[in-house]
Amino acid sequence: MSLQPFFKRPTGLIVAEIAALTGAVPHPDVPLDRLITGIASLDAARPSDLAYCDNVKMTGALSRTRAGACLLGDRFEPPSLDRCAVLRTKDPYRAFVTVVRKLYPDALKPTSLFETEGAAAGATVHPTARIEDGVTIDPGAVIGPRAGIGSGTVIGANAVIGPDVQIGRNGAIGPGASILNALIGDNVIIHGGCRIGSDGFRYNPGAGGHVKVPQIGRVIIQDHVELGAGTTVDRGGMGDTVIGEGTKIDNLVQIGHNCMIGRHCIIVSQCGISGSVTIEDYAMLGGQVGVADHVTIGERARVAAKSGVMSNIPAGTTWMGYPAMPGSAYMRIFGTARKALK
Amino acid sequence: MSLQPFFKRPTGLIVAEIAALTGAVPHPDVPLDRLITGIASLDAARPSDLAYCDNVKMTGALSRTRAGACLLGDRFEPPSLDRCAVLRTKDPYRAFVTVVRKLYPDALKPTSLFETEGAAAGATVHPTARIEDGVTIDPGAVIGPRAGIGSGTVIGANAVIGPDVQIGRNGAIGPGASILNALIGDNVIIHGGCRIGSDGFRYNPGAGGHVKVPQIGRVIIQDHVELGAGTTVDRGGMGDTVIGEGTKIDNLVQIGHNCMIGRHCIIVSQCGISGSVTIEDYAMLGGQVGVADHVTIGERARVAAKSGVMSNIPAGTTWMGYPAMPGSAYMRIFGTARKALK
Amino acid sequence: MSLQPFFKRPTGLIVAEIAALTGAVPHPDVPLDRLITGIASLDAARPSDLAYCDNVKMTGALSRTRAGACLLGDRFEPPSLDRCAVLRTKDPYRAFVTVVRKLYPDALKPTSLFETEGAAAGATVHPTARIEDGVTIDPGAVIGPRAGIGSGTVIGANAVIGPDVQIGRNGAIGPGASILNALIGDNVIIHGGCRIGSDGFRYNPGAGGHVKVPQIGRVIIQDHVELGAGTTVDRGGMGDTVIGEGTKIDNLVQIGHNCMIGRHCIIVSQCGISGSVTIEDYAMLGGQVGVADHVTIGERARVAAKSGVMSNIPAGTTWMGYPAMPGSAYMRIFGTARKALK
Repeated sequence: MSLQPFFKRPTGLIVAEIAALTGAVPHPDVPLDRLITGIASLDAARPSDLAYCDNVKMTGALSRTRAGACLLGDRFEPPSLDRCAVLRTKDPYRAFVTVVRKLYPDALKPTSLFETEGAAAGATVHPTARIEDGVTIDPGAVIGPRAGIGSGTVIGANAVIGPDVQIGRNGAIGPGASILNALIGDNVIIHGGCRIGSDGFRYNPGAGGHVKVPQIGRVIIQDHVELGAGTTVDRGGMGDTVIGEGTKIDNLVQIGHNCMIGRHCIIVSQCGISGSVTIEDYAMLGGQVGVADHVTIGERARVAAKSGVMSNIPAGTTWMGYPAMPGSAYMRIFGTARKALK
Repeated sequence: MSLQPFFKRPTGLIVAEIAALTGAVPHPDVPLDRLITGIASLDAARPSDLAYCDNVKMTGALSRTRAGACLLGDRFEPPSLDRCAVLRTKDPYRAFVTVVRKLYPDALKPTSLFETEGAAAGATVHPTARIEDGVTIDPGAVIGPRAGIGSGTVIGANAVIGPDVQIGRNGAIGPGASILNALIGDNVIIHGGCRIGSDGFRYNPGAGGHVKVPQIGRVIIQDHVELGAGTTVDRGGMGDTVIGEGTKIDNLVQIGHNCMIGRHCIIVSQCGISGSVTIEDYAMLGGQVGVADHVTIGERARVAAKSGVMSNIPAGTTWMGYPAMPGSAYMRIFGTARKALK
Repeated sequence: MSLQPFFKRPTGLIVAEIAALTGAVPHPDVPLDRLITGIASLDAARPSDLAYCDNVKMTGALSRTRAGACLLGDRFEPPSLDRCAVLRTKDPYRAFVTVVRKLYPDALKPTSLFETEGAAAGATVHPTARIEDGVTIDPGAVIGPRAGIGSGTVIGANAVIGPDVQIGRNGAIGPGASILNALIGDNVIIHGGCRIGSDGFRYNPGAGGHVKVPQIGRVIIQDHVELGAGTTVDRGGMGDTVIGEGTKIDNLVQIGHNCMIGRHCIIVSQCGISGSVTIEDYAMLGGQVGVADHVTIGERARVAAKSGVMSNIPAGTTWMGYPAMPGSAYMRIFGTARKALK
């Protein structure tokens, strides 16, 4: 692919190493010592690149590719191209991702934006903060009193870590993010501009105006969570707001106070989750979904993009629409309306 | 409740003080000198905690609670628990909030994230800025020329206050927020990452592309307003964008140029208010509502979450749907569609 | 209009200069040497202000205006006001904008918030960064290794420019924004809190949780683009995310990885564009629109606010609803439903 200045140019892997890494089987006569130093789509690939093909729509590109190597699904005819070293595998994309992760280790999580080692001169670290060895703190970051940061974690430029916040090991906090009132596990990535631990939105209406209800809870973010840029997670009112292990949340999502989000959920960009919502393990929410307060979304449930969830969703079902309803009911209503017009 | 490290542990109130503070009436034989040092739900409460019960769904938890004291609505049977000091009151939640505010004064508004007094060493304050005594400025904050900040206000770490901006007393600006072209009253809370006073979105289409229309207006934020994390308020094009006294706005809301938002409104997360919209006093907008430009939403009107408002809404009415319509009309259409399928 | 402290008070233009600048034709006997030092609406204008009238709804205000000069459309009766110098023109608003741009040059793009010249003392610039003469860098900004910034560009307070990022000339990066993995053209305005170049949202589901797919692409932003406050643009997965010349994007918009956005598009606040979407030149998206991944929106197509686009949209058409459909179909369905209830 085109010149790529933002990540370290891989030293590369030879075809035999790619086969060993992925379990893919090289075709006979493939040059096992060919060096692959990059990745690309079939269309864009150059002779030093690895590509993959796992979809019938890609077969045109496959027949023309200039890729030096290609991970190919079992059911595809190999291209009659001497120049492309074909490796057979059941799940080409999974194998491809395995190689990408090996080639580009510096893209696995955000790194220092200043190529800092340790704490940069321009960072402000409170003397009572407990910073383990091997922490990177970029210029302009502010680390508050008694905050703790584990080894291998990178605190981005101009990020703010509040008092008593604890962040585990091998994580990354993006530039300009702020983390307050939170306990954060290991291997957590929080991208730039996230606002973690602000006050929940709760007032008591009164004659003289709305009376603010103090929010004294916390945010708990478990291991291997990733939060996209600009996402906001409010702290609990009395208890905690919890994001479970391995859950991945996209950009500009709002998580209200006291939400309990399970493990390995997927929440796409611009979702709005009201207060005290429960989302069980492995649930998936499309983009711009809204969820009313105190609702429960069951394990492995799926909610289509832009839905408005106003009632509990049973485990394992797919819902859509506003108010959200089971996908089958939605399709009947929408289909009926369309047909009535024909 | 569980160990809570992020706010100062309350010194506590005895039951007699809670009664005096709230007007609640202790049951006979209640130990008036019992010390309460925390708050919790009925389920989570420990003997040192105050809880409340104002809902029939809570009566199960009430019968089992370990709370040392409980604010109880008039219509509820008291638990037959010696360990729980019962205080009777008409509005238990209101009384409860009154106690929480007394116990946790440091949760009423954001405090310094660095436990700074005055201006931190790492802050950059322009020599012409007018900073009253008793202002707190956290590390990394930047205060521009001729900006004015009133006593008791906290400027969070890495916040940016532009030239000539005036901020009143006893307010708080969150970490990483930026405030430009704005006049801000007293007791205003602006959470982390808010962007106040950026250019409105206005272009004049032309053959060679869109021509930017300079935006020379201001943002006026009156007393006791609270803005959630990541919210954006554009400045007026020629006149002002105004947010009225006591209005509370949640996270990630967009307020367009020249909006006039009244007093004591509630605007929930991720609403998008286009330019030149008028929202009258005490109106309430649910989450993810969109409002088209130049629309007026009347006093005390309510708009359901996710609605798209394309026309004026009369005072005191409840609207929903997209295009938004009176709730009764919406319910008829939606009910009809559902019934047709049964 | 009212006292306006945030932009430099214009030195002003005389009526003859306004006529020359815009091509508008002064009425006979108009005082060509009258000095105009501000702008306002007809209602708010004072004798030193220029106003305009291009809409029949404005004629009441026109008859009462105190404006010193007014740009008036051909089809309007001039006011019988000696005090208002009338200038005739076909397109009064366009002429008005031309004057505003001349009067308020400092509102054409964001300027230094600290009235900095060059790099402020409190900025952190990596020694390997290449900063042209005439760049302004506000306090707290962090410029990474090998980053390049062109002459006339302003880097706002606490903004972060990552390693190797290139930014052209005469642009502006707002306070607290962060730009990573990006190449940015000339005359680009990126408002406060934007997050450019974060990781796209892509995981490979697996037994032990979701496996992050490294994102090694870039963000390319062409000349004359403007991005509103808090907007996020993810970098490409393998290729690039591209925003074409002259495209204007509002606040809190999400642009997913590998999107190709054409030239001179308009994307209103809170839109969410999924990954690998193509938006062709001059397309317009209303607020809160969502677009599913891999969809193409054709040249000059228009999408109504809050629509959910799940399929390709042909060039030049107007679509609305969720799922989005041609406007005519949507109107028939919605109209039928309403009529059925009468």
